[in-house]
Amino acid sequence: MKFSARNQFSGTITAIHPGAVNATIDLLLPSQTTVVVQITMASVESLGLTVGTKATALIKSSWITIGGGDREPKVSSRNRLKGTIKSITEGAIQSEVMMALEGGEKMVASITNDSVESLDLKTGDTAWALFKASAVILGV
Amino acid sequence: MKFSARNQFSGTITAIHPGAVNATIDLLLPSQTTVVVQITMASVESLGLTVGTKATALIKSSWITIGGGDREPKVSSRNRLKGTIKSITEGAIQSEVMMALEGGEKMVASITNDSVESLDLKTGDTAWALFKASAVILGV
Amino acid sequence: MKFSARNQFSGTITAIHPGAVNATIDLLLPSQTTVVVQITMASVESLGLTVGTKATALIKSSWITIGGGDREPKVSSRNRLKGTIKSITEGAIQSEVMMALEGGEKMVASITNDSVESLDLKTGDTAWALFKASAVILGV
Repeated sequence: MKFSARNQFSGTITAIHPGAVNATIDLLLPSQTTVVVQITMASVESLGLTVGTKATALIKSSWITIGGGDREPKVSSRNRLKGTIKSITEGAIQSEVMMALEGGEKMVASITNDSVESLDLKTGDTAWALFKASAVILGV
Repeated sequence: MKFSARNQFSGTITAIHPGAVNATIDLLLPSQTTVVVQITMASVESLGLTVGTKATALIKSSWITIGGGDREPKVSSRNRLKGTIKSITEGAIQSEVMMALEGGEKMVASITNDSVESLDLKTGDTAWALFKASAVILGV
Repeated sequence: MKFSARNQFSGTITAIHPGAVNATIDLLLPSQTTVVVQITMASVESLGLTVGTKATALIKSSWITIGGGDREPKVSSRNRLKGTIKSITEGAIQSEVMMALEGGEKMVASITNDSVESLDLKTGDTAWALFKASAVILGV
């Protein structure tokens, strides 16, 4: 199966933290980057997820917020992945920002042209891909 | 492949409306319900989507807003699916609301307990599952 | 009409910036705070939105990221609303953070307990409610 989500990261589950309704899951990528995922306990069970399960994280480009600058943003989003901006493709309202993450993965974020301007984002800049654990769909 | 997204609807693409960066896509379910999806043009091309392609819409339960009452809400979310509440499962902070849509599909929404109370949601009530076109991942 | 979204802000549309598929809309609240909203052009038309239209922004608590500290976070999310933390209610995995915004509005964010800890969030702290324009549903 192929997906529209621009960001698809395959890895191995290294931890499952169960709650009453939701669980958070650590997905370790080959680059040693960990993606934190929040899904329902019902999905943990129906997918038969355990530590060691191989899984793929799907994240739409429109759910990613870009943080500018070298310092890690102090924000609550569990995923704050550092990288370098490789390209910025401008549309009428939105731009697509492509980053190369420190771990080597490629990450695409869709943000408004206004934000590209106000953050003064340019190719070669250090930036942060920020997304909530709840923004990730997990496939196995 | 199996996914953590609680809502997975398979159908056939009946329209693709291209833009500069994004496209909106109509996905017709067997029940004749249409789900509107927004993805990037890059994904339309990489997935080779055309009218007639079979595809599956993935929507996380946490991305769905519930509207109460019988009248269709006048809201911008492109997807406004009418149904009946079948069950409400309460957690510490969040509840899972399961709806049977008019078309016959089952839809799960994760909302806060406070919202269940303030909307006075009960099993048997008519309700609306609201989600933005941009909240859907498409798989083929 | 009633909605499950924990954050519902009524205001007046002061600008509509059209694109090929999406538009961004400025919604001015009575407190003079502006909420930026991104919806499809099809919704702008079907709802008959123009400058001057009264509308309500619906934002689920799970789509809000909290930024810590006094300085405005350098992030691409178009909405960065400053406020003070009024309460933190902890669940098994997630906490509900209630903020009083500078403009007087109340804002509820759902973030993980880990983020509450790592940001060292406490009642009385200054914080920022961050959410993308695309995370907002507009009702009229």
